[in-house]
Formats: sequence, structure tokens, C-alpha cells
Amino acid sequence: MNYILKNENAVYYECGFSCDNEVFLKLGSEAFFITDARYTTEASELVRNAVVLEGDRRDLLKTVRLLIRKSGIKAIAYNPSEWSVDEFGRLSDKLSITFQKKPNFSQQKRMVKSDIELDVLRQAAIYGRDAFHRFGEFLKKDGLGLDEKLAHFEAEAIYKYHGQLGLSFSPIVAFGANAAKPHALPSHKQLTQNELVLVDAGVMYQRYCSDRTRTSHFGENFSFNKEQLFSDGHRQKVYDTVLFAQEAAINAAKVGVLAKEIDKAAREVIERAGFGKFFVHSTGHGVGLDIHELPVISARSETIIEENMVFTIEPGIYLPDEFGVRIEDTVVMTRKGAEVIG
Amino acid sequence: MNYILKNENAVYYECGFSCDNEVFLKLGSEAFFITDARYTTEASELVRNAVVLEGDRRDLLKTVRLLIRKSGIKAIAYNPSEWSVDEFGRLSDKLSITFQKKPNFSQQKRMVKSDIELDVLRQAAIYGRDAFHRFGEFLKKDGLGLDEKLAHFEAEAIYKYHGQLGLSFSPIVAFGANAAKPHALPSHKQLTQNELVLVDAGVMYQRYCSDRTRTSHFGENFSFNKEQLFSDGHRQKVYDTVLFAQEAAINAAKVGVLAKEIDKAAREVIERAGFGKFFVHSTGHGVGLDIHELPVISARSETIIEENMVFTIEPGIYLPDEFGVRIEDTVVMTRKGAEVIG
Repeated sequence: MNYILKNENAVYYECGFSCDNEVFLKLGSEAFFITDARYTTEASELVRNAVVLEGDRRDLLKTVRLLIRKSGIKAIAYNPSEWSVDEFGRLSDKLSITFQKKPNFSQQKRMVKSDIELDVLRQAAIYGRDAFHRFGEFLKKDGLGLDEKLAHFEAEAIYKYHGQLGLSFSPIVAFGANAAKPHALPSHKQLTQNELVLVDAGVMYQRYCSDRTRTSHFGENFSFNKEQLFSDGHRQKVYDTVLFAQEAAINAAKVGVLAKEIDKAAREVIERAGFGKFFVHSTGHGVGLDIHELPVISARSETIIEENMVFTIEPGIYLPDEFGVRIEDTVVMTRKGAEVIG
Repeated sequence: MNYILKNENAVYYECGFSCDNEVFLKLGSEAFFITDARYTTEASELVRNAVVLEGDRRDLLKTVRLLIRKSGIKAIAYNPSEWSVDEFGRLSDKLSITFQKKPNFSQQKRMVKSDIELDVLRQAAIYGRDAFHRFGEFLKKDGLGLDEKLAHFEAEAIYKYHGQLGLSFSPIVAFGANAAKPHALPSHKQLTQNELVLVDAGVMYQRYCSDRTRTSHFGENFSFNKEQLFSDGHRQKVYDTVLFAQEAAINAAKVGVLAKEIDKAAREVIERAGFGKFFVHSTGHGVGLDIHELPVISARSETIIEENMVFTIEPGIYLPDEFGVRIEDTVVMTRKGAEVIG
């Protein structure tokens, strides 16, 4: 299959390198990495299995179109999500070949991880878990009275290992009612005794992501362990429901099941407890080079779960203006079941 | 004009709120902000002048298409850079209306700032300047022997005000030869006595950006002031040339001139000094919600400069493998001329 890629992670997966201005072209048995003068030195050293070519920084597509013309190919696949209407217009203008829409073909290739990728993902998960531990120690010591913005700032430094790792996304740090928003932005709300703390965060290690969420009671012996004792019975009930839902989904994850069956296992627990309409998102998503990749673990996902897929399991209950609870782990699918990593 | 927007800053400009999954629709006299369940609580509180509607998280376009159909409109404008081929296909499929390509129409609206925006931009610039001062104090005290990566990490913390502000972009911190790359990535190069230090950084305050660059001599009385004494005559000549070029461009910026005349004023100073081919970028760019917006201040820009435009003036000279100098300020256009802010 001839194909063209622009997305940095898709290109990295093909050839082991990417920068912020490149196009990857696979034309028959040949592959090309086209970038501009700022990156050709590094690309020449690091790109595997492709010829590095230098194009004009503001018009790489000129070089790309020339290569396509010269190759004599009749058709080429592309991901219609990677190209803006404007760019695709400039790419395809007056080229008399067929551009085949193949949504997510790179993501589909990447759904089942190689052993090397699994090693990196496991290590990322270990760094992520360790950062949770250190952020927990920080909050235990200095958290009282801290506002979400300062806590978020500290979280960024800790999850970045003070500059040695990247973040897979900007951490979510939410206290109390702000945790009722599944993607809360940090506010000036201060952390008080007996408040609920939700943290969703991950590191990026060798370009691969970790992803994890914990919800905790801020009181004596504060930690991000899954065992949490809330001073309020209502909170405890919601928390325990989410925890049972997560366990049910982890147990339901087996090689050969449909992704929607995993979602169903979590959703049923939450529905039975009467909180069904407050579980407003799907149960999980693939994790790899992208923080969100395939498979989707949702009520409608017909994907068959395979060995060496890596995805999150993260049910939640969000009670507007009250609080929210989400518990998330990343799992690797093995023949024995879902293995929580990190 | 009917229009549809997806870009976060474009949407924020229309209604005072945006999140990471939304569409803004202007249909005749009505406006709609369509988002998913994760954001409707916040959106309902914060969106001005538009009706907030909740759509399916994975298919907001369903709601958007329904609204377009019900409105009976014949045509709608969109920015072809904001939409992927895939999304635009799903948006426009079987809708019998005309989609008018209007590149950058939001950016064009936003080119001349309101008084409220100017207040925010001035405050952002003051924070930006203050962060330069504090980062300068830090380098003066602890900079010797520090590598670019650590200096960059410290710069991020300082420009973020330890979590109270955002960054308009990841700071550029480059020493010596690395400063010859206009977009240098931080390396393990260490700061030594009499080295040249280039810092390009800005804060984000209430979503608006500041932008500033200083190049300094690292020696006694180190600071990011514009008055710099280099121990090396060649560096001093290059520095003074860039400083004169910047002053010439600031003086040339008047209401009613073409943007290219501002570029020309800077470029002529650098060309006369014999460094023309080492000034490899344009003289400036608009600043606002986006760090790069309109007007473009380049050799080809025919934009007529108007009162209350806000843009950078940032000539530079880059001598490969030697060093680079860039001096940048952000200015507000007033009837009296360009006012440097911050």
C-alpha cells in the first residue's frame, strides 16, 4: 500500500524519528522522510528505513508532489483526520491519482504493541506511579490551604521529574466540587481538611505515555492508594461504586471479548447503584505514542480485544456541584487477562 | 455573515469561553455554543451572547448539522485551515448549502484590539517584563555552569509565576552558538563567562500572550537590559546593528503605513551593515489570543497599520556556528506611534 503520513507519532512509528515539520511517504518499496533545513542533520542520523530529503520550510508539499509525480503510482492512502481542507487542497491539486481515505490506519497498526513498545510503556507506567507517590507525599506535607493552581504547578514539576520527562497531558488536579467536572481546569479553590482530591496525570517516557487517575480523601494518612476512607458516607458509597466498577471492568477484559463488554461491566455496576446517568464518558481508551489511541472501550465499540493491546480502564461518577470520583489504571492485555501496569 | 468556528481562541473571542471540544455557530442573529457533557456546566456559566447546547461528545457535528438544517440558511463561512478533510466531510455531507472558504477570517477580526483587550495585553506584557527581570536575577546569581536544559526548566517556572500564569510558548533559552538557531531547542551546553545569552519568552495572562526577546552578555552586572556591553567587538557590532534596526522599525511604525515599510526599516539597517542574508525571518507578527496572529510584519505584507493593532518588532542576525542576536518588543499602535508595552 502506498501511503502518506503527517502526524508526528504516526511518522515516528514508521521510522523512529519525527520533528515538527515533515511528511512521510511510502511509495511501493521506497520510503521518504521530507523535512526542512532545520531538521535534516538530525533526521539523517536518526531516520530508519527511509530516505531523508530536504524541502522548502514553507512548502514541503512541493517536494512531496514531485515525488508522487515521479513515482508513477496510481493511488495513495491518507488519513483524512491528519490533513486540513486547506493543506489537502494544496497536496492533491491537479495530481491525477486517487487519494484513498483510510481513517486511523496508523492507529490501527499501532493498536497491538510490540515487545519493545511494551517495555517502554511499562517503564512509563512505573515513572507515572512513582510521580503519584511523590505528589501524594507533597500534598500530605504541604497540601492544606494550597489552591488548585499551585498544586497543579507542583504536579507538573513532579510528573516532569524536574525536566527529565515529558507529560502525556497537563495534569488534572481538582478539589471537591471541581472534581465533578471530568476535565476540570485548576482554580483558586483551596484544599481543606476532609476534602476530596482527584488527580489524573501521566508522564511521557521515550515518547510513550502513562495514564492514571486517583481520587482520595484529604485527611490523616493521605495517599493515592485505592483504599480510601471518606468521612462522609455518601462519598464513600460513590467511591466504592466506582472502585467496584473498575474492578469489574478489569476482570471482564479478556483476549477475545468485544471492547463494549468491558464498558458494560463497569457501567452495570454504576447503574445498579443508581448513578448511571452520572457516568458521562466511556470506560477507557488505548494508550501508546498518543495519549488517546485505539482501542476505544465504549458502549458501542465492536473492537475485539487482542493480546498486547494497552488501554485504560477509568469509570467515574460526577455529581454536579458536589464532587466527582474517577479511578483509572492502564492495563496490558495478556492471555491471562488484563495486567495493571505501573 | 453566517459562520462556523472550531479553533479555541476564535471561539473564545466570540463568546468569552472555550474548552477542547466545541463548535461555535453564528446563524443570522443567533449564536450557538455546542459542547459535550464534560463542559456544559462551565459553559453555561461563562458563555456570553450564545446559547449553550449539549451534543454527543464524539459527534458534536450531529447537533451542528441539525441546527444548520433548521435555520434554513443558504451559505456559511468557514476557515479551511481549522477543519480536517474528515471533519469537514462529516460537517458538509448532504447539506445543500454553500460552504464559503474564508481563510483567517477570525484572525482578521481580531487584528485591531478593543480597549479591554489592550488592558489585558498591557498587563500580560508587564508580567512578561517582570519575569525577564526575575529570570535575569536568577541567571546572574546561579547561571554560571548551568546547562540550557536546566535554565529552560527554571525559565518555565519563573515565566509561569509558579503556576499563576500560563506560557505563551515554551521559552527559548540559548547560549552562544545555539543562539544562531532562531528556534533553538535547549541542549546540555553550559553557560560560561562572557557567553552570549538569548531568551525569547512570554506569559499568558487571561488567555492573552506577551512576547519579548533579549540578548545579553553574560558577565559582570548581567541583566536583560537593552544596553549591553560585549567583550568582543564583533558581537558588539552585530548587537548594535540589531538594536538600531529595532529602533528604526519602531520609529517607522505609524498608523497608515504598510506593514512592509516597518519590515523595510529594520531590514535596511541590517543590510547596510552587511548582515542582510543573516536576517532570516520577518520583522514581526501580531500578538493576542494567539502568539502568532495578524498583522504579519514582513517584506511582502500589504496590511495597512491601524490604531490598536498589537504586534512584535523583532529583527535578528544569525551567524551559523557563531552566535545569534534578536531583540524583540511588543508594541501597541497609537496615533502618536508605536508604544512599547511591558
